[in-house]
Amino acid sequence: MSEVVAQAQAAKDAAAVIGGLPTEAKNEALRKMANALVANTGIIIAANEEDLIRGREQGTSPSLLDRLKLTEDRIAAIAEGVLQIVDLKDPVGDLLEEFHRPNGLRIEKLRVPLGVIGIIYEARPNVTVDAAALCLKTGNSVVLRGGSAALSSNRSIVRVLREALAGSDIPPDALQLIEDPGRGSVDQMLKLNGLIDVIIPRGGASLIQTVVQNATVPVIETGAGICHTYIDNTADPAMAEAIALNAKVQRPSVCNSMETLLVQEAFAGRHLSSIASAFREAGVELRGCERTRELADGVIPATEQDYATEYNDYILNIKVVDGLDEALSHIRRFGTQHSECIVTETQSSADRFLREVDAAAVYHNASTRFTDGFEFGFGAEIGISTQKLHARGPMGLPALTSTKYRIVGTGQIRT
Amino acid sequence: MSEVVAQAQAAKDAAAVIGGLPTEAKNEALRKMANALVANTGIIIAANEEDLIRGREQGTSPSLLDRLKLTEDRIAAIAEGVLQIVDLKDPVGDLLEEFHRPNGLRIEKLRVPLGVIGIIYEARPNVTVDAAALCLKTGNSVVLRGGSAALSSNRSIVRVLREALAGSDIPPDALQLIEDPGRGSVDQMLKLNGLIDVIIPRGGASLIQTVVQNATVPVIETGAGICHTYIDNTADPAMAEAIALNAKVQRPSVCNSMETLLVQEAFAGRHLSSIASAFREAGVELRGCERTRELADGVIPATEQDYATEYNDYILNIKVVDGLDEALSHIRRFGTQHSECIVTETQSSADRFLREVDAAAVYHNASTRFTDGFEFGFGAEIGISTQKLHARGPMGLPALTSTKYRIVGTGQIRT
Repeated sequence: MSEVVAQAQAAKDAAAVIGGLPTEAKNEALRKMANALVANTGIIIAANEEDLIRGREQGTSPSLLDRLKLTEDRIAAIAEGVLQIVDLKDPVGDLLEEFHRPNGLRIEKLRVPLGVIGIIYEARPNVTVDAAALCLKTGNSVVLRGGSAALSSNRSIVRVLREALAGSDIPPDALQLIEDPGRGSVDQMLKLNGLIDVIIPRGGASLIQTVVQNATVPVIETGAGICHTYIDNTADPAMAEAIALNAKVQRPSVCNSMETLLVQEAFAGRHLSSIASAFREAGVELRGCERTRELADGVIPATEQDYATEYNDYILNIKVVDGLDEALSHIRRFGTQHSECIVTETQSSADRFLREVDAAAVYHNASTRFTDGFEFGFGAEIGISTQKLHARGPMGLPALTSTKYRIVGTGQIRT
Repeated sequence: MSEVVAQAQAAKDAAAVIGGLPTEAKNEALRKMANALVANTGIIIAANEEDLIRGREQGTSPSLLDRLKLTEDRIAAIAEGVLQIVDLKDPVGDLLEEFHRPNGLRIEKLRVPLGVIGIIYEARPNVTVDAAALCLKTGNSVVLRGGSAALSSNRSIVRVLREALAGSDIPPDALQLIEDPGRGSVDQMLKLNGLIDVIIPRGGASLIQTVVQNATVPVIETGAGICHTYIDNTADPAMAEAIALNAKVQRPSVCNSMETLLVQEAFAGRHLSSIASAFREAGVELRGCERTRELADGVIPATEQDYATEYNDYILNIKVVDGLDEALSHIRRFGTQHSECIVTETQSSADRFLREVDAAAVYHNASTRFTDGFEFGFGAEIGISTQKLHARGPMGLPALTSTKYRIVGTGQIRT
């Protein structure tokens, strides 16, 4: 048995225990985890330093090194995040439905843990703690496979967390870290049907595609967002500019930021020049259609490929459209069913946009940047699902659960 | 573009239309479908005759030929099934959640269609109509890929149904039949990410495994059931025998029938002999553990492989166990997380069994044969999910939907 299989089997065995624990036992274990992180800050920072040295030697970019770096403050914040998860409502055991059949059977539908959750992610070591806490809180075992760039940090963090679990009701085996940095360990995880119940990839498009293309275990696809904002002729100009700017520049690197601005013709004629100026002042490179380039300065031509690109950067496509039909058609063609927005004062246009756009989150007069578990008030987020099965949009704790039917009879048989 | 891709693309285009139709428009189309089936009974029976002739030539078994055969009565019953789906509540548009954020955003979670559903199934042509009606009722397009043994029947049925849709608000392209009988068309379907939103296999274990192992499109796994009934020492003997017999012999060929009977030692000493007689009289071949063979006549030894086999036949494993722990451990090892039952008069044992057994449906004092959409009162069933994502257990109409967040603001931006 390979190490990966042995770890997944250990996680599965532990899942039978953690799945039955009361909320308070899980919370107590999470508190111990948070305390242990703070108490072992020095050890974790030393391990993190190994990753940083290796990263610098390998020429890792300063921005990536910064994402990788752990400090006393950052570890304290990560531990605080665990305590926030303690405060969240545990969905396990919730009675979702209850019905009685004419033959006297009582049927209940209950929330139960998923079992064993595999998380495959990239460099940021805070995900290690965050994903572990969310999965354990919901009574699941978790098998983590982080990026090799953070291996020393992750190994140190998981050792600290497993030691903390050893003093709790949660078996330490409920938390597994796959340490093999090769692709082979990922490939193995993706095919462990019967041991791993679901895989959630967290990272860039190429990681997610690798998982989707190769997994036989069910996957919750997260991530890619080519999000649009459509401003129609009746939009409030100040509101439209504020929403569009916010959707692009408040944090361009994330999946719910805007990649293409669609502007209806008459509004464009009146306001596109000044909106384009605002974007340029914010440091955004603009690419646009012919009509955009006639109306605004400093816009280079946008290609079909541009419309199909998730920049996650200070680059924006602008396209002038005749109206709602063209906007809907563009979004249908280039959107990734993540987050889409209309800015308008015309209710019927808003209604049609909200109804016809097929996306996890559709907005009227608000920035797409709100597609986020914390902004939705879930208190946590394991990711944003861009698929339609199981969970769609920001995933809070209930997305980490399944259901079970419990049927109580008095000897009923089927005739 | 291959024919399969072209059909899936046409289905996707049609999904944008059918997804927005009101319930009554969809119901009216379903009524037309039902009428057309009855009106074209002669044509369909003639096409079915081609399949039957080919089947006889190829030496197909009489029982399979019977499943394949369509008669006037059977077509009338299939049409009646469509009308029953008309009467079911349409889940699309249901408001599942609504909440207001401190910043004034109103967030609603709505049920929406999945989009394009692929169904891969085996010989029975009634599935063609049933799956089409369920998918269209829930606002989805459907791409059907039936078995080659029923190709003439399916082609005739789908032609009739599409003609009926041509006179309705549902675009005929919302219903597609892949006619290529080779494996290649299945392989293509399984990888149409972006065109097909979910694949649901309906059929035997090998079909389901082919789909699970090869699909990159999300799959809802259905089917395999190695179900157990555990009788403890405090069980009512008459109830226990009735439930066990029902779970095995009422319809052995289906996934919710029992494959292994677990009996606690003292109960076995008192009653196993007579229960075994009842099974033998019902024509069931018995395979058992050592203790079973000491207590009952005509029992051949059961192997590990037997415990791991879904017979779907008049064969039963019997194992005597010391108690609940051993029963739970056996089920954990050999069960397929489908349906599991305890017969007991001891509430604490029932509670523990219902809590600890990890399965789609767990029963106390009732036959596992009730795991069924109709028996649960859903009025329909697209299959029984044996996985934990999206839907678990019998799947009614809501299992054919996804959700969408609708967010209404007044200019909110993220800070």
